[in-house]
Amino acid sequence: MNILIIGAGGVGRSAAMIIKQAGAEGSWAEKLVLADYNLQRAEEAAALCGGTTRFIPEKVDARDSAGISGIIKKHTIHFVMNAVEPSYNETIFDACLQNKVGYLDCAMTLSRPHPTDPYHKVNVKLGDYQFAKHDDWVKAGCTAIAGSGVEPGMVDCFVRFAKERLFDTIDEVNIRDGDNYTGGGFGFSVWTTIEECLNPPIIWEKGKGWFTTERFSEPEIFNFPGGIGDVEVVNVEHEEVILVPRVIDCNRVTFKYGVPKAFRDLLLNLESVGMADKEKTLELGGAAITPRDFLVRVIPNPIESSSAMEGKGCAGAWIRGVKNGKRRSVYLYQVSDNQDCVKKYTTNSVVAQTAVGPVIMMELIARGIWDLKGVYGPESFDPFPFIERLAKYGFPAGIREMDSEYSKSLDENNLLELISRGGKE
Amino acid sequence: MNILIIGAGGVGRSAAMIIKQAGAEGSWAEKLVLADYNLQRAEEAAALCGGTTRFIPEKVDARDSAGISGIIKKHTIHFVMNAVEPSYNETIFDACLQNKVGYLDCAMTLSRPHPTDPYHKVNVKLGDYQFAKHDDWVKAGCTAIAGSGVEPGMVDCFVRFAKERLFDTIDEVNIRDGDNYTGGGFGFSVWTTIEECLNPPIIWEKGKGWFTTERFSEPEIFNFPGGIGDVEVVNVEHEEVILVPRVIDCNRVTFKYGVPKAFRDLLLNLESVGMADKEKTLELGGAAITPRDFLVRVIPNPIESSSAMEGKGCAGAWIRGVKNGKRRSVYLYQVSDNQDCVKKYTTNSVVAQTAVGPVIMMELIARGIWDLKGVYGPESFDPFPFIERLAKYGFPAGIREMDSEYSKSLDENNLLELISRGGKE
Repeated sequence: MNILIIGAGGVGRSAAMIIKQAGAEGSWAEKLVLADYNLQRAEEAAALCGGTTRFIPEKVDARDSAGISGIIKKHTIHFVMNAVEPSYNETIFDACLQNKVGYLDCAMTLSRPHPTDPYHKVNVKLGDYQFAKHDDWVKAGCTAIAGSGVEPGMVDCFVRFAKERLFDTIDEVNIRDGDNYTGGGFGFSVWTTIEECLNPPIIWEKGKGWFTTERFSEPEIFNFPGGIGDVEVVNVEHEEVILVPRVIDCNRVTFKYGVPKAFRDLLLNLESVGMADKEKTLELGGAAITPRDFLVRVIPNPIESSSAMEGKGCAGAWIRGVKNGKRRSVYLYQVSDNQDCVKKYTTNSVVAQTAVGPVIMMELIARGIWDLKGVYGPESFDPFPFIERLAKYGFPAGIREMDSEYSKSLDENNLLELISRGGKE
Repeated sequence: MNILIIGAGGVGRSAAMIIKQAGAEGSWAEKLVLADYNLQRAEEAAALCGGTTRFIPEKVDARDSAGISGIIKKHTIHFVMNAVEPSYNETIFDACLQNKVGYLDCAMTLSRPHPTDPYHKVNVKLGDYQFAKHDDWVKAGCTAIAGSGVEPGMVDCFVRFAKERLFDTIDEVNIRDGDNYTGGGFGFSVWTTIEECLNPPIIWEKGKGWFTTERFSEPEIFNFPGGIGDVEVVNVEHEEVILVPRVIDCNRVTFKYGVPKAFRDLLLNLESVGMADKEKTLELGGAAITPRDFLVRVIPNPIESSSAMEGKGCAGAWIRGVKNGKRRSVYLYQVSDNQDCVKKYTTNSVVAQTAVGPVIMMELIARGIWDLKGVYGPESFDPFPFIERLAKYGFPAGIREMDSEYSKSLDENNLLELISRGGKE
């Protein structure tokens, strides 16, 4: 399979390095074109992968459909990994459909808040644009995976696994993300962090559907595995809340993330002075720029600034329900150490965790193991081969029984062991 | 006297309106040229003053010495009021000396922090550039007043008054500024607010001289008159700490301002992401802009946004010392109501309070009452005629005895009454 990665920033570069480092296991990816609006960045990423003819740098403007099509044709691309900010999704997604090649992204098309009641009601939701085109993708015989990174992505596979093996009925699916990094600030795309943290958080409940809340609502202390421990997590807008209830029968879906209080205040402060604005443009020397885009240029590169941090990050799905007539509460997760990821992939753990999901999903599609045609979230596919490969690629998943009589036998087991036993206790 | 006001923003416009509204009392100002880089703003300010031939709009670039000289010559200007951000002071100050006309400003030339120990040691101080040219001004036979607004400015006259009438010896001079505005945010020049709040605060002590501290250090609850009540005030860099000990014999001089905790965090947050930077420039469409200048363009006009606020602002000098062998503690102040100022001067109370000082000082110079030649702070001049005129121009000063046996007879008296009695208790 020939792959085009659009965006040679942290996620795109890490994906290429994960494939490179997989050696023979990565041979399903025959050619990898690394495209970026900054050609030098694409060349550097290709050089990090050994500078062979397999990893090819290209210059691309993610807003230029014709340019994307040109690269797809030039390199006989079969599958496109979108590793740029989600504001560019529509163009890339549509270019893939037009060229009848596969597509995946790490964040879905953007939401638009409700015009009069943004903190109670939804309006345009994350991914609405993409799922509305499902039939066109079916007709084209192509696969698009919306939300293929770590969150959304990896955790959606965890939820599907839980439904298949760990529960008879599921009550709540609560995605929980936390870390014990020293220092703070932006560790991920500045643009996307502002977007997800300042949009109204979304919750889904059976009977009520999707609704929104105040920013950073319902703070909760969640105990994370891997030595991270207690972290205060709060509601944040995230794709899993859209994706999970489309496929998994349950009563409630939430997403909470360990946004430190000081960082919440920083984001709200930036919003209060107008610097988070992504719509309004200011004219400067004949050019126009939004305050948020200016801010992205001023803030130190988050990948570089987070490379010095010590600590671990954990992404996971906390699922509560019933198994064999008994209440059960399980957290399925992936913990990565920041310094390990910096050494292996020249980027922080959040970025590396985000990059491994798309790599595995593209392998499963390349090998014909995942073969649904249309637009899907990761929970629509078989989770077992995905979870198996997580360990192979260096990101092993874990399972923690949260309470009940299950807790003694399986506390913080490697999820692979559980799968090898057929997911039975 | 013919006056050129450079800057037709809040302070410049208010100064013109104060003169206009003084009627016959303001006849000492024969011609007022209102100059701004935005000619429309100058024209609007002139129109607010009645659109007569006495108030004349002009376009000026405060960085363009030749342009300033041109206007001075064209209109036979005798005195220049600098009402723009202090980063332009050098150019305007030097142009005035060159043309042998008078000068005053509301904020002095900027400081530069100590390169290695910024929170303990001073380096270039506020106004150093200006006072270094004192001899040139003496030689030219011209008057320059550094820091003529409310703080510095009005409060420096209060300190001189206290020295002349209320104390035999002064121990401490503590400038204290607070308000009970509803809402918060920027109520004054965004650029200047960032500058004064994020620079290391300065303190003066006898024997030790000037030194600096951490930002927002030594929080203290100060009880303000006029119904404002208790406000937490913190150390902020300000000109009075430079000006007062040059003229007034005392042991310690401080400046504290009621910067709300949330606003301090906002400023520190803006600094942490690089948006307070005034040195580094980013290239955009062929133009270069500093993050702080970009921020100034993004933040809503502080004058407009503060016009809806209810509440009062108080500026004053809290002086402690000894009189007739007894310990004495006095707060001399001016309280202004925000909505009153919006109605009278189309601007908030802080801006209006800042504008009245320069107007009175120019009158005193025009009438020959203040006639020192050289570069001086306001405490070098006779404070009585200044304080008398404060009431005439609608900004009456008050006095509060802070403790001791003085408190019963004089609590919150109008300062004018005290003056009429010769300042005797």
